[in-house]
Amino acid sequence: MITQFHDHHLSAEALDQIFREARSYNGWLPRAVSDEQIHAIYELLKMAPTSANMQPSRIVWVKSDEARARLVECVSDGNKDKVKAAPVTALIGMDIDFHDELPWLFPHADAKSWFEGDEEGRKEGAFRNSSLQGAYLMIAARALGLDCGPMSGFDADALNAAFFADDPKVKVNFICSIGYGDQTSIFERSPRPEFSKFNTIV
Amino acid sequence: MITQFHDHHLSAEALDQIFREARSYNGWLPRAVSDEQIHAIYELLKMAPTSANMQPSRIVWVKSDEARARLVECVSDGNKDKVKAAPVTALIGMDIDFHDELPWLFPHADAKSWFEGDEEGRKEGAFRNSSLQGAYLMIAARALGLDCGPMSGFDADALNAAFFADDPKVKVNFICSIGYGDQTSIFERSPRPEFSKFNTIV
Repeated sequence: MITQFHDHHLSAEALDQIFREARSYNGWLPRAVSDEQIHAIYELLKMAPTSANMQPSRIVWVKSDEARARLVECVSDGNKDKVKAAPVTALIGMDIDFHDELPWLFPHADAKSWFEGDEEGRKEGAFRNSSLQGAYLMIAARALGLDCGPMSGFDADALNAAFFADDPKVKVNFICSIGYGDQTSIFERSPRPEFSKFNTIV
Repeated sequence: MITQFHDHHLSAEALDQIFREARSYNGWLPRAVSDEQIHAIYELLKMAPTSANMQPSRIVWVKSDEARARLVECVSDGNKDKVKAAPVTALIGMDIDFHDELPWLFPHADAKSWFEGDEEGRKEGAFRNSSLQGAYLMIAARALGLDCGPMSGFDADALNAAFFADDPKVKVNFICSIGYGDQTSIFERSPRPEFSKFNTIV
């Protein structure tokens, strides 16, 4: 029996926490994030859907001073202070050979064969689905009372060499600091579009 | 003053609803989804972060019998019955010329200039960030008591011609049916990885 929640809305407070009041932070309070919190984020995000359960994300959670110093060297000037102050920064990589894992991740069908010999298709699938997983990561962190600061300003080749060198089929997609956001570090929220600007119902 | 939720966890029931108990559905109960529900999903998803607030998604919500019949012609054989039965299917498109909107979407800086003349960078940004927005759409729909059925099995050229022809710089990313899931339509949940399989803390 499956638990369903038809027509049940999350509380207004919960919707505020994960969508309406959450902000992307540029600065961080000096408070640590534990390994247990990192695990708890992953335990949620891994449950959310990816195509054929491909789960292409390979995540390096940068937490030690040594790793943080290496990461600072890879990010753009505008992001160096952010990364220095963040208790954790997640490096969301993607494995373009994710199909090697499909025999156990998707036991319902021979999904591996769908991707063999199709590197372009795998690159597209890995990019789309690791991006989905990056979004789930942010919502999961917020749902557990943490804040996020996603970034795409970095030298991808340098970052891949510094953190994903032992597996050359994994490439970074984007990175996201996680911690307790400093209220003084953010600027006014950017405008959001009206429904009719970017949506149509047909 | 910004509302923060530091260390506040969503309830176990809320985490079940959006992550742990939610499933991707292949079949749908014969219950309509209203325009108000579609608007409510968008009002949540638009609040979540995209790079420089680029908001590259352009979403066509297929709801009428006429549009649904057109869509059925564009999807793969295995998805035709799913789309026929779904009350709504969201076509998540991406605008590779999203930068034209940045002067009002990101008033803090001249972000449009960052992307001018860089079509490859725009394609990458549009793909990554419209994928994030697709993930937000699914979490938002679940948070409002609806179920999702994401799909990438379709003829993209046919779908673009049928639904995005009036704006050739918009291309479909993926599609997602939304409604009240039929419990009998899903198979056993695919395995999820242990943390150590795809994560490292450094």
